[in-house]
Amino acid sequence: MSTEKNAPKQSAPAAQTAITPTRAQDYPEWYQQVVRAADLAETSDVRGCMVIKPWGYALWENIQRSLDKMFKDTGHKNAYFPLFIPLSYFEKEAEHVEGFAKECAVVTHHRLKPGVKADGKQGLIPDGELQEPLVVRPTSETIIGASFAKWVQSYRDLPLLINQWANVVRWEMRTRLFLRTAEFLWQEGHTAHATSEEAMEETLKMLEVYADFAENWMAMPVVKGEKTEGERFPGAVHTYCIEAMMQDRKALQAGTSHFLGQNFAHASEIKFSDADGKVSYAWTTSWGVSTRLIGGMIMTHADDDGMVLPPRLAPSHIVISPVTHKPETAQAVLDYCNKLAADLRKIPYFGRTVEVEVDNRDIRGGDKTWQWIKKGIPVRVEVGPRDMEQDSVFMARRDRGHKEKTSVKRDEFVATIHSVLEDIQGTLFARAKAHREQNTQRIDSRAEFEAFFGARNEAEANESGGGAVKGGFALVHYAPDRKVEEELKTKFAVTCRCIPLEGADEPGTCIFTGKPTTRRAIFAKSY
Amino acid sequence: MSTEKNAPKQSAPAAQTAITPTRAQDYPEWYQQVVRAADLAETSDVRGCMVIKPWGYALWENIQRSLDKMFKDTGHKNAYFPLFIPLSYFEKEAEHVEGFAKECAVVTHHRLKPGVKADGKQGLIPDGELQEPLVVRPTSETIIGASFAKWVQSYRDLPLLINQWANVVRWEMRTRLFLRTAEFLWQEGHTAHATSEEAMEETLKMLEVYADFAENWMAMPVVKGEKTEGERFPGAVHTYCIEAMMQDRKALQAGTSHFLGQNFAHASEIKFSDADGKVSYAWTTSWGVSTRLIGGMIMTHADDDGMVLPPRLAPSHIVISPVTHKPETAQAVLDYCNKLAADLRKIPYFGRTVEVEVDNRDIRGGDKTWQWIKKGIPVRVEVGPRDMEQDSVFMARRDRGHKEKTSVKRDEFVATIHSVLEDIQGTLFARAKAHREQNTQRIDSRAEFEAFFGARNEAEANESGGGAVKGGFALVHYAPDRKVEEELKTKFAVTCRCIPLEGADEPGTCIFTGKPTTRRAIFAKSY
Repeated sequence: MSTEKNAPKQSAPAAQTAITPTRAQDYPEWYQQVVRAADLAETSDVRGCMVIKPWGYALWENIQRSLDKMFKDTGHKNAYFPLFIPLSYFEKEAEHVEGFAKECAVVTHHRLKPGVKADGKQGLIPDGELQEPLVVRPTSETIIGASFAKWVQSYRDLPLLINQWANVVRWEMRTRLFLRTAEFLWQEGHTAHATSEEAMEETLKMLEVYADFAENWMAMPVVKGEKTEGERFPGAVHTYCIEAMMQDRKALQAGTSHFLGQNFAHASEIKFSDADGKVSYAWTTSWGVSTRLIGGMIMTHADDDGMVLPPRLAPSHIVISPVTHKPETAQAVLDYCNKLAADLRKIPYFGRTVEVEVDNRDIRGGDKTWQWIKKGIPVRVEVGPRDMEQDSVFMARRDRGHKEKTSVKRDEFVATIHSVLEDIQGTLFARAKAHREQNTQRIDSRAEFEAFFGARNEAEANESGGGAVKGGFALVHYAPDRKVEEELKTKFAVTCRCIPLEGADEPGTCIFTGKPTTRRAIFAKSY
Repeated sequence: MSTEKNAPKQSAPAAQTAITPTRAQDYPEWYQQVVRAADLAETSDVRGCMVIKPWGYALWENIQRSLDKMFKDTGHKNAYFPLFIPLSYFEKEAEHVEGFAKECAVVTHHRLKPGVKADGKQGLIPDGELQEPLVVRPTSETIIGASFAKWVQSYRDLPLLINQWANVVRWEMRTRLFLRTAEFLWQEGHTAHATSEEAMEETLKMLEVYADFAENWMAMPVVKGEKTEGERFPGAVHTYCIEAMMQDRKALQAGTSHFLGQNFAHASEIKFSDADGKVSYAWTTSWGVSTRLIGGMIMTHADDDGMVLPPRLAPSHIVISPVTHKPETAQAVLDYCNKLAADLRKIPYFGRTVEVEVDNRDIRGGDKTWQWIKKGIPVRVEVGPRDMEQDSVFMARRDRGHKEKTSVKRDEFVATIHSVLEDIQGTLFARAKAHREQNTQRIDSRAEFEAFFGARNEAEANESGGGAVKGGFALVHYAPDRKVEEELKTKFAVTCRCIPLEGADEPGTCIFTGKPTTRRAIFAKSY
């Protein structure tokens, strides 16, 4: 809480909204202000690298804990591989290196010595040039492949199911907290299999794990689909993804799972001998999600008062603020609150227990309330001397706006908190899903497509207060074609998000080329 | 298990010891072979960087989980700061940069382009030179200090208690798995306080947490002490440490806690205004332990058969091997083992439940047994058809040599497993403590000191089979003097490990300079 002062001061609890500008006024700036007001992260002086603050990092720890259990339950083990990749490794897979070459941080020296710096002043300069430059991992297929080549020799060594929690670096020119940063935290699963079928099964199983996590933990509905060629991971044969719709109707790619065929097995020489002694290349997969998920949660649930946390991942579920204006009752009220907190902390909730803050800081009640609203804590409780006498508490739910407060008997509050939290979780999911459904449209002609995405420009949109982005998810018959995708990207900033996996085939005609198709693809603007 | 093949093949269970060479024959090589045979880690092709394999990483995860809880219980919160430190930040604290300049990996470029490489061949070369080089963090005082300067303004913002779990890089010329690697994983605590007293209290509190963890979780006895000036962390005012004695009687520095005074607060401008509005610099601390702890556990507990894991941190506690030679009973035995495993997994054990592997792989029983011995699993169980009939199991404890096996009634085994694990934990600690006590000597003259450390050279020691290192912990009266320390380091490879904090003052005379002293210091060879 000590860092709250960096947020814009909230002068009075009567304020209309805590975040300026609102979503309708300026969505991108609203996003930055929510991250700041909720104390989740901040920019650093290191280009594109963020500082994840305690409240944001606790959210990441909860994401890690839940996902890690899902990975282990599906047979994966964690390991750790080097941060640095020798350039020669990186070059082994041609498409891969081409895809990442422009965003690689490169270590060229291994010490510093006194010298003349670029600005002409005396200072330390890099010294001890390396014979071979090292790339700071942007992803680890090549370095993990080198280990897999040693670990896999016989079919008995397969499948090999490994996950790594790590930091990675991709030098991005335009960065935005959580959504796109030069350094980010992620997990990357890497597996090797004896057959193509098994590798494909793994690829889709992990996509399912991601979808399950996004919907049931993050309360963020997603579409599972396959990327078209132009959007594939560099070096992959098939890339699958989960795509979510943000409140500004743009898409966010929230996780990807890649079927790598034998491409990386060839590059890294991952070979095994089968029961008959015949030697073959293994089939590999990789899959990852990152701190970007936090950006997705913000843009799915936050409102004009700040962050709104899905209870299953919230760093803390309940804040209890004792009202201690009168010195003669202050200690009794505080004791009452601490006892309430202790009872709540005994309640199991999704792999942990209900987590409670008792906020007894000596600051204005209105400021205190607004700080917790902005941080998105699911439930706020206030207890004053009169409540204590009546054995009741004042309760407010973060999903119901900042004005609604209800008085509840203390024991009833404890008895129902689990279902209240679950109700909030369910409400957030339902709200996000309704938003997506309202803004998903089947479109059957190019003219309609252009009207959906292109008609209103940003200036008009800002004037009318309706947000800068028109459109949403357009479901169109599409025969994949890189030229079409390039044109749509340039003209409308729209990309093919994926070809959804679910739903029946539906014969049709590509709205761009007239070619016959069997399924609809999703097009949208995106992060 | 798929990676076991990299370890030297164990031809028969009758082998004298599983690790060649033994500790007595060649201690450093024995260490490398244990790491390999236990499948904990391996070297990579990236200079000095290790690959932490699943069994080793699971051990690290258990270390993390236990320590993290201790940090949170003492009021600390986790956060995450950039991997890269701008050179200008790094230069702000003069002693600090001097201490680390020679081992810094430096990022100088942010992309790759086709060009002529150092070997004259065409390939990718670093491009996009950075205006200011970035140092890959060897430790984060300066980059975290930059955030603290923003977060701390008033005395109300203090104390600020932050911890980070991260990878760090120190370019080491001679590396050894876990003990000294170019990249390693660690945690680094960073705190800021309003007064010198509070910062000192924090420094010593975290030293106590480390000692508690080392002794009660790792079963590794440690001495808490203060470093002399020559061994201090670069930039610190006082450095405290925990020092453990390895089986070769060398010391291992297992954790450090630094009182940084106002040095880094001045460098980073961490200032606060007190209740009267007066502005002062904060007082800061930092403290860390790393994957080096795993090296310490190996050198404390492992034996000539491989790793020996302290149960409280073991990735898994029990392996059950069904003996299924006869097809007609194979399924029944396997079912029996799975039921036993399920019952064991219900037993709580130090923040988790008892963890069990059922190893039904179709490999020779002797090989299987030796693999688990080498991996150090605390308890091995075998169940054959006859055991099943009698409702009993064969049990072996890793702390009792590979020959001792006892038959135990199944229900008794389940009922006593918690105390068996605790008994193993206690045995390991007692053994290590006795070893340290046997090899700690009070020494009262320089001649005696030289005889203790210097008399036997490595060749003689190897011939007599007694290990290369003579000596142990020498407790001597010592008045700190950098020249003396340099001389002892050069002549005997002996350093002052610390001045122990515990024990009463004892007036004496420095055995090197004759100056009066009040306490004894510990000298030893070290890792």
